[in-house]
Amino acid sequence: MSQGQRFDPIPADPVGTVPTPALVIDLDALDRNIARMAAFVASHGRRLRPHAKTHKSIAIAQRQVAAGAVGVCVQKTSEAIALAGPEKGIDDIYVSNQVIDPRRLEALARLAAHRHVAVAVDSVQGAERLAAASAMHGTRVGAYVEVDVGHGRCGVPPAAAGALARALADRGVPVEGLQAYHGRAQHLRSRTEREAAVQAAAHAVAEARASLAAAEVPCGRVTGGGTGTLAIDAASGVWDELQAGSYVFMDRDYADNDPDPDAPRFEHALFVRAQVVSRASGHAVIDAGHKAYALDSGSPAVWRQPLDVANGGDEHGLLVLQPGADPSALPTLGECVWLVPGHCDPTVNLHDAYVVVRGGLDHGQVEAMWPVDARGALR
Amino acid sequence: MSQGQRFDPIPADPVGTVPTPALVIDLDALDRNIARMAAFVASHGRRLRPHAKTHKSIAIAQRQVAAGAVGVCVQKTSEAIALAGPEKGIDDIYVSNQVIDPRRLEALARLAAHRHVAVAVDSVQGAERLAAASAMHGTRVGAYVEVDVGHGRCGVPPAAAGALARALADRGVPVEGLQAYHGRAQHLRSRTEREAAVQAAAHAVAEARASLAAAEVPCGRVTGGGTGTLAIDAASGVWDELQAGSYVFMDRDYADNDPDPDAPRFEHALFVRAQVVSRASGHAVIDAGHKAYALDSGSPAVWRQPLDVANGGDEHGLLVLQPGADPSALPTLGECVWLVPGHCDPTVNLHDAYVVVRGGLDHGQVEAMWPVDARGALR
Repeated sequence: MSQGQRFDPIPADPVGTVPTPALVIDLDALDRNIARMAAFVASHGRRLRPHAKTHKSIAIAQRQVAAGAVGVCVQKTSEAIALAGPEKGIDDIYVSNQVIDPRRLEALARLAAHRHVAVAVDSVQGAERLAAASAMHGTRVGAYVEVDVGHGRCGVPPAAAGALARALADRGVPVEGLQAYHGRAQHLRSRTEREAAVQAAAHAVAEARASLAAAEVPCGRVTGGGTGTLAIDAASGVWDELQAGSYVFMDRDYADNDPDPDAPRFEHALFVRAQVVSRASGHAVIDAGHKAYALDSGSPAVWRQPLDVANGGDEHGLLVLQPGADPSALPTLGECVWLVPGHCDPTVNLHDAYVVVRGGLDHGQVEAMWPVDARGALR
Repeated sequence: MSQGQRFDPIPADPVGTVPTPALVIDLDALDRNIARMAAFVASHGRRLRPHAKTHKSIAIAQRQVAAGAVGVCVQKTSEAIALAGPEKGIDDIYVSNQVIDPRRLEALARLAAHRHVAVAVDSVQGAERLAAASAMHGTRVGAYVEVDVGHGRCGVPPAAAGALARALADRGVPVEGLQAYHGRAQHLRSRTEREAAVQAAAHAVAEARASLAAAEVPCGRVTGGGTGTLAIDAASGVWDELQAGSYVFMDRDYADNDPDPDAPRFEHALFVRAQVVSRASGHAVIDAGHKAYALDSGSPAVWRQPLDVANGGDEHGLLVLQPGADPSALPTLGECVWLVPGHCDPTVNLHDAYVVVRGGLDHGQVEAMWPVDARGALR
């Protein structure tokens, strides 16, 4: 389907005319988030490798790299290919996830002919297949040994990291370091809880380091961390490279964390614009449901209005007044609202393109349309 | 991104080699579902206008029409344009939802130059704008007056239907009938509850009919109903046209309803194939998370294995043994499983294409790739 048939706006359109539902970037806020993160990691002497699973966008990744990021993380081989781009994409891409399909590993090996490519590994079988793919194409794909530091998903136990690193090194795969990510720690509401989780993860990293030393494999760097634990990760001294991704947009769920006084103040930069298409006495129905925003971390928030969004199904949301709100705050037919997604990553993945707005949501105008380059890149 | 970079299979590939995650149609099961529905509506003397928001596919809509469906419903203008297709698409398309943006109404009016097009209306403002768009393009877009028959979302109260029908007729908009859909009734677990909800909806329709009679507007046909209430809708005699959509695929949520002995037996025909990419002692991690299947109606089921899927995040699912299952049932690294999505519609919307398999999931082969033509058609 052509862009025109999707009713995309064009540059210089006033923000008030953007057709709905639309995935909208407040570009001023995005740029401030990128600048604040760059200053933060520089002041802590850390590398930043932002997770591009959040935005899936070459344009945003390029802004992050221009501000000092060393490259990006992705979760999928097809995301890596999309963000490498045909010509002008990203030069340094790390798949921070397990890949065991030989066809995908071969694709990474081919990509490594003209990009720096690495992948996480947590099994000997994965190590063998990665080595075979690299050998077949005569290229170098680096590996990070993934350690389970408390998340309880992928990764070897810390004490087993050395044996796997040895298995990689013996097969000629360059061991670039340790993948140490604690996803659930990001969303613990209190800083105290997050601090305890990061401390436990740091202990696991120390154990894994000792295991690599015993196996006589240099550890390289430790990569991991996220937006929710950013300041704690950086202060720990354990992580050489930080993978935070959501900071670039922020979402309702991250904003629900108790604020961390040591972390930069990131702003909401990603919104879903929606329009009231039906009005009843007690609610207004908008044209955006969970095909327009993800619900895995709860409903979106309504930006700067005393309204809540109740689930209205795939293509509808129900706006209801918050307790005590003035009844006149319920929007009328045709009015638009700005939603702050509950979770930015899967919300972005629902849309083909960003409407990029300069000058704010009230009086700004469309500066560009940016494709979500890796939308649906699941493999 | 080209299809090749997404690792799509090609026709004649054995099903066991399909790269993961993949949205897979069991074409034999799909064809049986379509045939059973066709026989059912014929035996009840009803029209079938299946909801294409489920599949968003011209190929599937064409199979439904070939089996006797009068056309399709969609929820969005851009879905209508996608399913109308450049040449060989669907001829009769009804947007069973509110559209109030004049640009979208104009697009429908343009489409009506070469397709039969109708749209639901629940406000005088919507009626005025629809009339203006039709007049501007000199075409005929039909209207169904949407009545709230118990769902509590869009639609006028039954007693107000006549005034709105009159407003449409006075502006020269052809009133084709009443839109009477009770979405929540579809998912009530017991047949008794569903029957009570449909009965209440039928009363609302009768009241709306009386309101149209008082306003001296012919009622036309009543359209609505769904997969969950199919047999009850058909037996009521109230709905002239049935809008069931999910029957074509079925999903875990619909299968959780108590079976209705009067309804055809529909089979699961839609699956997400996923591969184990990491194994721990107590769980296996698959490469499909909620970017590959929607969670709004709960987790997917694992097809014919004693396994449950726990949420593993955007790109991961955690397979765990059901209580009492043999530990050997936990799949090993590299094995694949078939997931039955919790909710088919938003799951389809995550994927760019269907892998269409003939001959079953065990020994079949890829027959075709079908694009999800209206994927992401949100406007």
